[in-house]
Amino acid sequence: MAKGNLVYGQSGGPSPVINASAYGVLSKALESSEIEKVYALKHGIEGLLKEDFYDASELKELDLLIQTPASAFGSVRFKLESHIKNLEIYKKIHQIFKRNNIRFFIYNGGNDSMDTCVKLSNYFETTNYDVKIIGVPKTIDNDLPLTDHTPGFGSSAKYIINTIMNIKMDSQVYPKGKVTIVEIMGRHAGWLAASSYVAKNEGCGPDLIYLPEQVFDLDSFIQEVRNVYDKTNNCLIAISEGIKNKDREFIGSLNNTVDAFGHKQLGGVGMYLGDLIEEKLDLKYRIIELSTPQRACSFLRSESDVLEAIKVGEKAVEFALEDNTNIMVGIKRINDKPYIVDYIKIPVGEVANKEKVIPASMFTKTGMAKSFYDYMYPLIDGEMPVRFQNGVVKTFKI
Amino acid sequence: MAKGNLVYGQSGGPSPVINASAYGVLSKALESSEIEKVYALKHGIEGLLKEDFYDASELKELDLLIQTPASAFGSVRFKLESHIKNLEIYKKIHQIFKRNNIRFFIYNGGNDSMDTCVKLSNYFETTNYDVKIIGVPKTIDNDLPLTDHTPGFGSSAKYIINTIMNIKMDSQVYPKGKVTIVEIMGRHAGWLAASSYVAKNEGCGPDLIYLPEQVFDLDSFIQEVRNVYDKTNNCLIAISEGIKNKDREFIGSLNNTVDAFGHKQLGGVGMYLGDLIEEKLDLKYRIIELSTPQRACSFLRSESDVLEAIKVGEKAVEFALEDNTNIMVGIKRINDKPYIVDYIKIPVGEVANKEKVIPASMFTKTGMAKSFYDYMYPLIDGEMPVRFQNGVVKTFKI
Repeated sequence: MAKGNLVYGQSGGPSPVINASAYGVLSKALESSEIEKVYALKHGIEGLLKEDFYDASELKELDLLIQTPASAFGSVRFKLESHIKNLEIYKKIHQIFKRNNIRFFIYNGGNDSMDTCVKLSNYFETTNYDVKIIGVPKTIDNDLPLTDHTPGFGSSAKYIINTIMNIKMDSQVYPKGKVTIVEIMGRHAGWLAASSYVAKNEGCGPDLIYLPEQVFDLDSFIQEVRNVYDKTNNCLIAISEGIKNKDREFIGSLNNTVDAFGHKQLGGVGMYLGDLIEEKLDLKYRIIELSTPQRACSFLRSESDVLEAIKVGEKAVEFALEDNTNIMVGIKRINDKPYIVDYIKIPVGEVANKEKVIPASMFTKTGMAKSFYDYMYPLIDGEMPVRFQNGVVKTFKI
Repeated sequence: MAKGNLVYGQSGGPSPVINASAYGVLSKALESSEIEKVYALKHGIEGLLKEDFYDASELKELDLLIQTPASAFGSVRFKLESHIKNLEIYKKIHQIFKRNNIRFFIYNGGNDSMDTCVKLSNYFETTNYDVKIIGVPKTIDNDLPLTDHTPGFGSSAKYIINTIMNIKMDSQVYPKGKVTIVEIMGRHAGWLAASSYVAKNEGCGPDLIYLPEQVFDLDSFIQEVRNVYDKTNNCLIAISEGIKNKDREFIGSLNNTVDAFGHKQLGGVGMYLGDLIEEKLDLKYRIIELSTPQRACSFLRSESDVLEAIKVGEKAVEFALEDNTNIMVGIKRINDKPYIVDYIKIPVGEVANKEKVIPASMFTKTGMAKSFYDYMYPLIDGEMPVRFQNGVVKTFKI
């Protein structure tokens, strides 16, 4: 294994704990005698191509990364073409690696980022340049295969569960309530929307739940809302933004709301269903999109998730130093209660561009199955302590 | 003063700490030897008219009220007519008070609830029935006059400040950002929207802010967004839902979006401004309505706010036992740093139906003045510890 420098990059959508993984990678690499310089890329692969990176040894209060949401070093959405299609870009990266003696490339993200790792690995296999390429998983959507779960999911889920419980309590203070629709992230995998049912399992949560893994039928939906409202004068509905009809069309795409300027308004499956409820049931409704706060909360995060996020970062460095390449660090669950995990090496090609949805065994016709709750509870366990200053979460600044 | 029983009721919109005040009232009353029975009304005045209340001595884990958002005993929006207009309802209340030997009536809410206190006081002054009527302030909007601030505001503000900081961090991860509009509660008083600027003061907050206290001009708005975006490739805007033009019309009322069923869509000033930005500036936008979570957060609350909420509840009982009636408990600020307050008696008639907006001295043309920050920091100070169970906030259950 060649001695040299390490670069770390962040890619794809932000998460509450991707910076905890950054802390894991950077702090572990900084203390290693086998790694010389440690760099953090500005905006991932885009920063690499511009040779634009921070020297981690010059960064202050690195441990604040642990409680800083979003991507502190900047993220990017950049889909590399394969080296067969665009050799130029790889040659450029090759030169940059050489020039900076980069021997370790650690990339932190979701499916697309793992695809970047695969493509770089494939290219460098055709060269005699020795560089270890390791993926660190991150996605609130929990849709990466072969790992029990992905860092970020537990914290987003914990935020959603507690927020939806608050919304439920807020929605039932008057004798006569409304229909409340809470729209939760997840285009194809409904893990986050499903997690809201943990609030119900704890005694105060949504009445109805709709996931992309199921077929969403408008008529049944209207009937189910009617039934709940007639019984309770209230109805709280959790939906995944990605719910689809039997033809697998997004329900959100059926929305043809026209804005004040005559443009078709984008998205808004919640809004569409709210309008439908008003039209068909003549009930008042309220739409709550949990929006970006669900993926960027600094003040309520799962302790187990944050600690695992740090760990996968550390493990990435460890695995690289053990001469591994072309792998993603995965989490293998050994036991639910007590919760025990192991960190494993997953060939990154087996992860890239694949999506893990909720298995049918985890949901029932009307909600979630026991196996889902057994899966969920360890992931939201514990509350990560947070340092505040002047009433505000103290975050990492470059 | 007649010995007897106490009733406590909640009214108006929920808040993160109204139940902390409930705890203050009920626990203080339960330990008093001068009060016999302690009751909590179901849905405020509506529960009173139905003689529908809980016996507080039978409630379990009362201290969980401290960390339970929304109105645990149920709220109500019920505007009493004066006894001149509708004597019947007062006679009914009089009988209910007599029958249940109610000698203390403690009502927890905002402007309308204080109006209820005034009207009941006015009526009972015409009788020889001795009952102490005390208002306990609650409103996240911070719009009650004569009190330095109202319980609930500090916690909602703290949630908003930290959430908008998270949104800002999330919005700037890519090299090229969007225009993000965050819509914050407050129809006439902009305190909550203004509080988001504390995040900016702490280094990461909105670029622009618009309050109902100012005149909102569409052309200037577009120009200001353009300027910020041109400089930073990004723009985060905090708006109060109640922003108004020079004719004092709500900007939200200009929205003439038509939904999928041909109905005019209600509200949504953020959506309207987003559409405008797309039309005039051809920029992508995202709207984030903080919605009900901003008034119902159980997991991030200001310690000073929660402790004061308990205190105003305790003081209400204390003041009643000292033979006061027809007053609201107010908070008087003695000093900013160290923060010292006193609890005062405000004639409830001076509070009811009046609204406190942000004084002009607290904002500048482009943001908030130092006096605003001096006012804000003590109100968001400290983080109230929270008890979790299975990863979820443990709340009071009846």
